[in-house]
Amino acid sequence: MSFNTFGRLFRFTTWGESHGPALGAVVDGCPPGLALDEAAIQPFLDKRRPGQSKFTTQRQEPDQVRILSGVFAGPDGIQRTTGTPISLMIENTDQRSKDYSEVAKAYRPGHADYAYDAKYGFRDYRGGGRSSARETAARVAAGAVARLAIPEVTIRAWVSEIGGDAIDPANFDAAEIDNNPFFCPDAAAAERWARIVDEARLAGSSVGAVVTCEATGVPAGWGAPLYGKLDADLAAAMMGINAVKGVEIGDGFAAARLSGEQNADPMRPGETAPEFLANHAGGIAGGISTGQPVTVRVAFKPTSSILTPQQTITRDGEATEMFTKGRHDPCVGIRGVPVVEAMMALVLADHKLLHRGQCG
Amino acid sequence: MSFNTFGRLFRFTTWGESHGPALGAVVDGCPPGLALDEAAIQPFLDKRRPGQSKFTTQRQEPDQVRILSGVFAGPDGIQRTTGTPISLMIENTDQRSKDYSEVAKAYRPGHADYAYDAKYGFRDYRGGGRSSARETAARVAAGAVARLAIPEVTIRAWVSEIGGDAIDPANFDAAEIDNNPFFCPDAAAAERWARIVDEARLAGSSVGAVVTCEATGVPAGWGAPLYGKLDADLAAAMMGINAVKGVEIGDGFAAARLSGEQNADPMRPGETAPEFLANHAGGIAGGISTGQPVTVRVAFKPTSSILTPQQTITRDGEATEMFTKGRHDPCVGIRGVPVVEAMMALVLADHKLLHRGQCG
Amino acid sequence: MSFNTFGRLFRFTTWGESHGPALGAVVDGCPPGLALDEAAIQPFLDKRRPGQSKFTTQRQEPDQVRILSGVFAGPDGIQRTTGTPISLMIENTDQRSKDYSEVAKAYRPGHADYAYDAKYGFRDYRGGGRSSARETAARVAAGAVARLAIPEVTIRAWVSEIGGDAIDPANFDAAEIDNNPFFCPDAAAAERWARIVDEARLAGSSVGAVVTCEATGVPAGWGAPLYGKLDADLAAAMMGINAVKGVEIGDGFAAARLSGEQNADPMRPGETAPEFLANHAGGIAGGISTGQPVTVRVAFKPTSSILTPQQTITRDGEATEMFTKGRHDPCVGIRGVPVVEAMMALVLADHKLLHRGQCG
Amino acid sequence: MSFNTFGRLFRFTTWGESHGPALGAVVDGCPPGLALDEAAIQPFLDKRRPGQSKFTTQRQEPDQVRILSGVFAGPDGIQRTTGTPISLMIENTDQRSKDYSEVAKAYRPGHADYAYDAKYGFRDYRGGGRSSARETAARVAAGAVARLAIPEVTIRAWVSEIGGDAIDPANFDAAEIDNNPFFCPDAAAAERWARIVDEARLAGSSVGAVVTCEATGVPAGWGAPLYGKLDADLAAAMMGINAVKGVEIGDGFAAARLSGEQNADPMRPGETAPEFLANHAGGIAGGISTGQPVTVRVAFKPTSSILTPQQTITRDGEATEMFTKGRHDPCVGIRGVPVVEAMMALVLADHKLLHRGQCG
Repeated sequence: MSFNTFGRLFRFTTWGESHGPALGAVVDGCPPGLALDEAAIQPFLDKRRPGQSKFTTQRQEPDQVRILSGVFAGPDGIQRTTGTPISLMIENTDQRSKDYSEVAKAYRPGHADYAYDAKYGFRDYRGGGRSSARETAARVAAGAVARLAIPEVTIRAWVSEIGGDAIDPANFDAAEIDNNPFFCPDAAAAERWARIVDEARLAGSSVGAVVTCEATGVPAGWGAPLYGKLDADLAAAMMGINAVKGVEIGDGFAAARLSGEQNADPMRPGETAPEFLANHAGGIAGGISTGQPVTVRVAFKPTSSILTPQQTITRDGEATEMFTKGRHDPCVGIRGVPVVEAMMALVLADHKLLHRGQCG
Repeated sequence: MSFNTFGRLFRFTTWGESHGPALGAVVDGCPPGLALDEAAIQPFLDKRRPGQSKFTTQRQEPDQVRILSGVFAGPDGIQRTTGTPISLMIENTDQRSKDYSEVAKAYRPGHADYAYDAKYGFRDYRGGGRSSARETAARVAAGAVARLAIPEVTIRAWVSEIGGDAIDPANFDAAEIDNNPFFCPDAAAAERWARIVDEARLAGSSVGAVVTCEATGVPAGWGAPLYGKLDADLAAAMMGINAVKGVEIGDGFAAARLSGEQNADPMRPGETAPEFLANHAGGIAGGISTGQPVTVRVAFKPTSSILTPQQTITRDGEATEMFTKGRHDPCVGIRGVPVVEAMMALVLADHKLLHRGQCG
Repeated sequence: MSFNTFGRLFRFTTWGESHGPALGAVVDGCPPGLALDEAAIQPFLDKRRPGQSKFTTQRQEPDQVRILSGVFAGPDGIQRTTGTPISLMIENTDQRSKDYSEVAKAYRPGHADYAYDAKYGFRDYRGGGRSSARETAARVAAGAVARLAIPEVTIRAWVSEIGGDAIDPANFDAAEIDNNPFFCPDAAAAERWARIVDEARLAGSSVGAVVTCEATGVPAGWGAPLYGKLDADLAAAMMGINAVKGVEIGDGFAAARLSGEQNADPMRPGETAPEFLANHAGGIAGGISTGQPVTVRVAFKPTSSILTPQQTITRDGEATEMFTKGRHDPCVGIRGVPVVEAMMALVLADHKLLHRGQCG
Repeated sequence: MSFNTFGRLFRFTTWGESHGPALGAVVDGCPPGLALDEAAIQPFLDKRRPGQSKFTTQRQEPDQVRILSGVFAGPDGIQRTTGTPISLMIENTDQRSKDYSEVAKAYRPGHADYAYDAKYGFRDYRGGGRSSARETAARVAAGAVARLAIPEVTIRAWVSEIGGDAIDPANFDAAEIDNNPFFCPDAAAAERWARIVDEARLAGSSVGAVVTCEATGVPAGWGAPLYGKLDADLAAAMMGINAVKGVEIGDGFAAARLSGEQNADPMRPGETAPEFLANHAGGIAGGISTGQPVTVRVAFKPTSSILTPQQTITRDGEATEMFTKGRHDPCVGIRGVPVVEAMMALVLADHKLLHRGQCG
């Protein structure tokens, strides 16, 4: 089965392969009247775009988005959403014509090649086809639209760990995040990571990373218990990103090592809403937002594409060895930052509408 | 919004509150012709049932399930599913009449009380109402039906860590799991945990836990990329369980600390299917099963109900203090084991049907 | 496949067979805070209940509904919805133990017996099992809850034609509808129908009917174009009722015989909203409500259960003859009236919430 | 709310406005391995294309479809579906730049203008925007893909009535359908219709039509009772087509005028499956296919765009008069034929997959 739609009221459907003519997203259910043009989306795509430093893949894609439907310029000349589906398209321009005969015949270990073939019996093997991380450009574009639907929320993600080397919370400086090629809020860590990632790159190896994302301004009450809980939807959204293997809300696995007293989030009266004295829960209780910042941590595995040859099999079941040629991210987690932000925005926009629908 | 249905083809809807007359599940989409009676479900409910040791809540509920629809005994006298919705009901028998005036007036910290009130403006405060872990009985019952739909799969979960004390993989003995009140596969760890949990219990405190679940026999090819990936669905299923704050597939967060070489899962030709030399990926690549065991790790926070008073607020916004009276699990993760297994079964049954529908 | 859930935000799932222990519905997504107890539902079930005149089946079912979840009595003692799933159960009390050996072996023509067997390979043949019109009791109960969510709307249905004999619009008197056993707004027609239906009943035959339903008070703007249009959802809702073979919105098939001028619904300024000079469209344009009354006409075929023997086949494929013994409605359309009303309420409640979610 | 996705397993999402740069559909869930290129879709679009006779609108659109994803040419050079989403795009080339100031200010009676404004508060008024029948090109393209997934089924639609003038069943000749501009299987009727439609066209008026559609080869067992019944899904699919006001399955409203004996569909043993002696039911019982031809009748209202001025109101609520300038179909039902066929194919493809998923 193939399911390429995400969301309940604020929904998006993506399409496209790594080496096809284009990829895109259809955003459906977006509220009408929001100012939207390409310029509102492009900065987020630019943030995700490859080839911006030596620490990411050198594939060159301008990733220019076009809006094909769902907007209209009214008498004031401002283009706005009309409430109808918004079709976003990004053309693929850097489809190097190269020799795919090897990847056509054998399965790259750690990639989805074998699984897709086992499922569909037939696959577009060029650059991973549909399973390529290139598809996340469509999510980022859709996420940019979602942000417009939740102006009360501020979303910010950063890399908090690379190759097992974590940032020092004491050094956290939000202003640093966009000052280095790692989206790293700790300047000292960014320097160390430059060495770690460069070493991996030069060795044809790769390293993993952890991305942290925080959404502030989420009011209490969003969430759809019991099987559309805000945290469950976030977990699905994040685990569905390429290369992600773990998701934590709030303290996550660390909470499993705390006592009930240590893990408590006591409350006291606040100005306009209760004030919480801690946020171990990551802003969600019982699947519903509490008004505190919603915090998620996402683990990215090291890129599977490495130069060291690995044992694998051909489509015919013969033993062979493969290593990955071509341009790859030594640390896919870095470019995961705008994707994590986009998925956060998409989940929150959906839950805002769901809440308003039932309880508005 | 309220969304109490899970799954796409094999779906279930649960209903019921902690202190209402009953709770239940409607399982829809189950294939016809599967032998099903109450005896096929009851053992799983018994495994989850409280009051079986001093390490779990003393609430006494027989949790007897009744099947109200969707089955029929044919000429051979064997009751089988008919393909129509299966209604499962469990009556609540231990609804102690007690004084709820305190919990009616103020929000228990760490619980969903405040969030539900912020969302719905009105709540059933008795025993947590709909947000009570009591609802998981309905999931366990539904999960027992799901298991019948995937006879090729064996699902087994255990507690792998309590209060930060992990099992020793070298001591792993599957036969031990049902030999102790902790579903612990490491006899030595079980002894230590008895002290840890008992200490927490006597102190009116609580501890967290990690549950590991493994499904063997899942064929390659199940999964619905890109927004119904098998791992994403598992993440949602697990994160939606009460008290869960983290989910890992395969190596999870540990993978983020490995190099690409260390994290590789090389393949070689096998008897009937490729043989993998490692399973860092947890049996899933690109959101699709690979034929290896599907492995998940789930972090449970310590029970929020503790005897130490905590700062909180009343419904009227006044400052107050609360501690939790009554019967509670000092470690909710323990009773999470059958729930994790149930959710694994439900996700897999759904994906089996989805795969057969599109690719069958 | 089996799909027993209807609706997007205001959703219900039904379960149960004609001769099982009970049947029911789980209503999910209902807004919180609505006063709801059994007394708010029972009158609608009573209206649908069989055995109230000689013109309907003599099966005796008290059809007492129980609410098992989703409501809570607050400090004012009034029981209200909490926003969580509302489980409704109706026990089957009149399950006559009779001999089903004939129906077990052969397929009743015009019934779903053969189709269910072709689909599931196995069926509960007692009284039609899941395909029995008895399931509509669950819809009527769910519909009663839906009405509470749309207090601005008034829904009224009646029988407008029986056995090809239509009411005279000039005789329409809403007050007559509940004055006769046919829900007939035309007293003269009711007298004629008494003869028509009685004749069919005595002959062991059956007649068809047309039910008309009107919802007033629906504001302009409800509807989810393009694939959740209000009229498309109503068409699905009505066509899904047992024995229904046709659905019209507004003028329906008659509109296909009009010219563009005759079919026009001109507008002029009104007090608070535009005033329409006609309503050929039945209150819906482009799948969205216009503020005019929403009108639907629904065709019920004659009951398939008749005394005249019909050619059919056994499960083994042998030729045989069958006629229907037992208690049956000579005109199922009559008891369809509360079912049509319920489905109208359920569709409108869903669309109210959907509209509020996206455009609220 | 906006819901632009149709189907459960075989799903499609459409996007685009009448006067935007393009429109399209994303088909998701299509089985892998089906030979698919533009040439497999184009003939169906050509059949629907306007401007092919004086009896349809003179808008000239080549309606060339492009496949942007979801297909791949394997070693044999044949392009096949891969099981991933298929993106179809049709560029709008005949967007006449004309003066829209009048339609921007006032609501065309009978059109969706007022309803869209009431819903979204803002609309693309050029050519009806999203509510234009131009969107049906995307359905037709998606339907062409659906046909590939159900090779066992043959779908054929025709116009059976125009302006109240019905074909004579005795004259039915399938070979005639493509011999005249009306998709009329009765040569004599086609001649009469030429006069009727031409008269309407010259008078700036319009006429309604009825389209009949038949699918043969549908095996017994497709359908998803109770709330995804095959007939209910067909009703939604057809009622959701622009200008449709009524849907009948089998005998439809005529069945409501038959007795149970007249309406019976007796069975007798057949070669490979039961043989039915009649098909009043239109091939569906209890929401499940019976193996007989599935037959649907669909009523199209007369085009709302006429030259006679009609009373209406401006956006500001002032009284005014409007008539429709520009190019319009005097009988939209004619071009509805390929759209009805497409929706039939899409519903059947979905149900084939659903059935295989649960009962395969």
